[in-house]
Amino acid sequence: MKYELSKKAAGISIAAAVAFSSIGLALNSPATEVEGKKNEPANVIMMVKDGTSAGAITLARWYKGEDLAMDKILVGGMHTNSAESAITDSAPAGTAMATGNKTNDKVIGLLPKVVNTEGAEMIEPVEPEDALAPIANVLEGAELAGKSTGIISTSEIQHATPAAFSAHAPARSHYDDIAEQQVYQDIEVVLGGGRESLNTGNTRNARKDGENLLEVIDGNGYDFVETKDELLNSTSDKLWGSFAPSALAYDFDRQAAGNSEEPSIAEMTKKGIETLSKDEDGFFMFVEGSKVDWAAHANDPIGIISDVLAFDEAVKEALEFAEEDGNTMVIVVSDHGNSGITMGNVNTSGTYSSIPVSAYIEPLKKAELTVEGALSKLKADRSNMEEVAALYGLDDLSGDELKALKAAENVAGLMSDLLSERANLGFTTGGHTGEDVFLYAYGPSKPTGLVDNTDLAGNMAAHLGFNLAEVTEELFVNAEEAFEQKGFVTNIDDTDAENLVFVAEKGNLKIELPENKNVANVTQNKKSYEKKLEGVTVFNGEAFFVSKKALNMSK
Amino acid sequence: MKYELSKKAAGISIAAAVAFSSIGLALNSPATEVEGKKNEPANVIMMVKDGTSAGAITLARWYKGEDLAMDKILVGGMHTNSAESAITDSAPAGTAMATGNKTNDKVIGLLPKVVNTEGAEMIEPVEPEDALAPIANVLEGAELAGKSTGIISTSEIQHATPAAFSAHAPARSHYDDIAEQQVYQDIEVVLGGGRESLNTGNTRNARKDGENLLEVIDGNGYDFVETKDELLNSTSDKLWGSFAPSALAYDFDRQAAGNSEEPSIAEMTKKGIETLSKDEDGFFMFVEGSKVDWAAHANDPIGIISDVLAFDEAVKEALEFAEEDGNTMVIVVSDHGNSGITMGNVNTSGTYSSIPVSAYIEPLKKAELTVEGALSKLKADRSNMEEVAALYGLDDLSGDELKALKAAENVAGLMSDLLSERANLGFTTGGHTGEDVFLYAYGPSKPTGLVDNTDLAGNMAAHLGFNLAEVTEELFVNAEEAFEQKGFVTNIDDTDAENLVFVAEKGNLKIELPENKNVANVTQNKKSYEKKLEGVTVFNGEAFFVSKKALNMSK
Repeated sequence: MKYELSKKAAGISIAAAVAFSSIGLALNSPATEVEGKKNEPANVIMMVKDGTSAGAITLARWYKGEDLAMDKILVGGMHTNSAESAITDSAPAGTAMATGNKTNDKVIGLLPKVVNTEGAEMIEPVEPEDALAPIANVLEGAELAGKSTGIISTSEIQHATPAAFSAHAPARSHYDDIAEQQVYQDIEVVLGGGRESLNTGNTRNARKDGENLLEVIDGNGYDFVETKDELLNSTSDKLWGSFAPSALAYDFDRQAAGNSEEPSIAEMTKKGIETLSKDEDGFFMFVEGSKVDWAAHANDPIGIISDVLAFDEAVKEALEFAEEDGNTMVIVVSDHGNSGITMGNVNTSGTYSSIPVSAYIEPLKKAELTVEGALSKLKADRSNMEEVAALYGLDDLSGDELKALKAAENVAGLMSDLLSERANLGFTTGGHTGEDVFLYAYGPSKPTGLVDNTDLAGNMAAHLGFNLAEVTEELFVNAEEAFEQKGFVTNIDDTDAENLVFVAEKGNLKIELPENKNVANVTQNKKSYEKKLEGVTVFNGEAFFVSKKALNMSK
Repeated sequence: MKYELSKKAAGISIAAAVAFSSIGLALNSPATEVEGKKNEPANVIMMVKDGTSAGAITLARWYKGEDLAMDKILVGGMHTNSAESAITDSAPAGTAMATGNKTNDKVIGLLPKVVNTEGAEMIEPVEPEDALAPIANVLEGAELAGKSTGIISTSEIQHATPAAFSAHAPARSHYDDIAEQQVYQDIEVVLGGGRESLNTGNTRNARKDGENLLEVIDGNGYDFVETKDELLNSTSDKLWGSFAPSALAYDFDRQAAGNSEEPSIAEMTKKGIETLSKDEDGFFMFVEGSKVDWAAHANDPIGIISDVLAFDEAVKEALEFAEEDGNTMVIVVSDHGNSGITMGNVNTSGTYSSIPVSAYIEPLKKAELTVEGALSKLKADRSNMEEVAALYGLDDLSGDELKALKAAENVAGLMSDLLSERANLGFTTGGHTGEDVFLYAYGPSKPTGLVDNTDLAGNMAAHLGFNLAEVTEELFVNAEEAFEQKGFVTNIDDTDAENLVFVAEKGNLKIELPENKNVANVTQNKKSYEKKLEGVTVFNGEAFFVSKKALNMSK
């Protein structure tokens, strides 16, 4: 199997490693020596504010009325396109940043089938036999290097971006597979939503494979926490926090509730750092402010502001640790634009130059809740429409507006439009957008300038001291090819279609490799035992990929 | 008179100067010593792509199909708000970057009357007596420091942004005053449009004050050129190029014409550098790609792409010189966003993630001309509407579309909309937008990170070795106050309302200071002579401001 793209990424990583380490030494040695900061171990905190355009950041800053934490570490910009499209979705964007490889829409942690970006940022086509082959992410590299790792999100933890930093699946919707891989990845800290994908049940994202991952989590020594207090009080080195069946609430809604048991993203980030930084070998931690993107899709400026500001508080926590630590790289970036939000719309085309900031911000300040939060209070008959609209800052509805809201098929959309109109905000789309995004970074070896989203993986790997192509070679061998080359007979046991097992047999040795787990069930001379593998076994829809270690299971 | 804002700016400049010079030395000494590059003199090339949002840059890059020159020097971002509004117009934006002071809408090179930005980037209110007081720009500082200077634009050279780097007026529309000040500023290189403001005539921007500035230009030793060939063939150290009555053509239209006598912005930039770099004391040069902004106002993606790419060629010229020179700071920035242009619009809300680049670019590639260029071919009766639309890439008009175009009140707007629809582009407004913009910079002492538009003036002044507050003190003394303090009797002679003269008399000494000029007409003991001043005399609508030198005119 050829890894054309991985090899290319590897080349970049090595070059980057050399360049960065020399710069890092030159710039940091004096400071660290003088101030006695520790130079080892190297840590990376990777923070993604999903779907956050430049316009969203400026608006949130004006709303807050002071500089953001991330403002201090702006270093450049980033291209966001996927392997097939000018405008990426989160799955290929996350895969690009986590693995260093562009991929196709919906794909998590696998090489693309289709490469179709004419013009700039053209990437080499993928060899047909490499299509959908798994490629290692930075978290897997960190684990293999003996570091602690963590993933944090305000969405379901199985959502595309955290998935891309911890799993491999041909479709982002495969929550069953993604959740299971996360559970078997030996990640030390997992905090977010998505509890329903951890067990069977009747909800949409409940498991269909009959597995109870809560038991596995418990068996693997995690402190499993479900509330903010449990999180903050935990002293465990392994922490699994699952604070909602699906996504967490928007931060404004969480705060307005007063008695919410959900932690903020800043609290999760702080706790994650506290926990992971106990590891003397260093750590990699991924944090996503997931719902800026969702609010942008809904063209809801309150949701956008809410979760940009909450995310920025998390950035503040990361920077405080990194400044103190001295050898932590922090990267903060949006995976793509969304909604085209601008201060300024068709109403301001001729008058913008004398409109004070307050004309944009004051209408927004009237909102106590996001559209989602406000609408959660709406009665089925909409008899309290006026009160609900007022919670969203629409306290001055005309009779016609109220009537329209009561009749609206998409009441959320209409509420957002009414508020944006009052606040002089414009949107171009309910989808993502294609422009380069701002790149923020801090610490030694940090990326600067205009980078491609695929560059970040190499930067992070270099700082952490490994090469992603080598990690891929270690973790993702084509099982059929590799075992057959060693004289095994192989097949895929699909007795349980939701729990496929790769089987390799040779003489009296039988090796069974269940998908999404890091275990091999070995039977030799009629004795069975379980062996732990590095990384998880991935079925990409056609073939199994396993860690090299699986090839040497005979006693 | 108190210069609260100037003093604040001065504080920043001094601190910046110290910080920058030490960094500059640390980073540059080894390279320049080894490679034998000259460390002196210090030069600055300041390049503004007016009204260019992030979405415009990404779109232009995909259209070109390769990286832009400016991509190599991305260093951060910039706030753009004015003293009174979240969204700036070009006059206060230019003033902020040129002088280090935020000001009000329409104001060129004067302090604001109104400060009204609640929240972040709040600036101190202006003392009432300081309202509309002139503040020095970087070009004036460079001239005072004995360096050569230049201004280049593709619009009228009197347009807001080049005006802010070379003149002072309470309104950007005062082309008469701005043009006259530019002529009397002793700028070595002036290249652009706006010829009609240099002499009297019947056109809209012809001079109303009866002055023939072409004679003054000639008398001051400039080589006055009006075509590309004349420009390229000139060997003069003083060069005034005026290539169109008002603005130059969009670059695509210029190229399509084949026989255009207008130079490209890259040619003007290259010639400007060649001319100014003869000065052993160094130079300051300002370059504006003016018409990206105009195309954005018109929501014309072709005009945007045309002039982003043409501007980028000019950046390439500047960078080639700066790389060779070793002590040239190049700054490239947009003064504000415009139009909210995004790849992605309401048509792509649900489908963006699998739309290839070609779906955005191919419809645009069909256009040979901008909307302005195409419409210049439209007959009064619109009988050739179909052919004209095809020149703009609309070669597949439906019957209804053609009918609509023939009937449209705003045919340019409809053509732009039809093309943007085909190219999946969105716009939020026909005006400017409020988001932070990308900042590009190269060379020693360059700014990095997230800056305010007012910071750049201090960066440039520090690299060039002067302090703008000191330059302001030198060049802009309140004439009435200063002369009366010295015992003069003063008045404003408004015999010719278009050519006001400040008059100061004491005993047998009479000093006459005409507005917009750098001359004093002195009469002493019945003998008259003319003396040259530093900087130009500014009338801000209420008071005269003159250089300190004017106070010591008696023999």
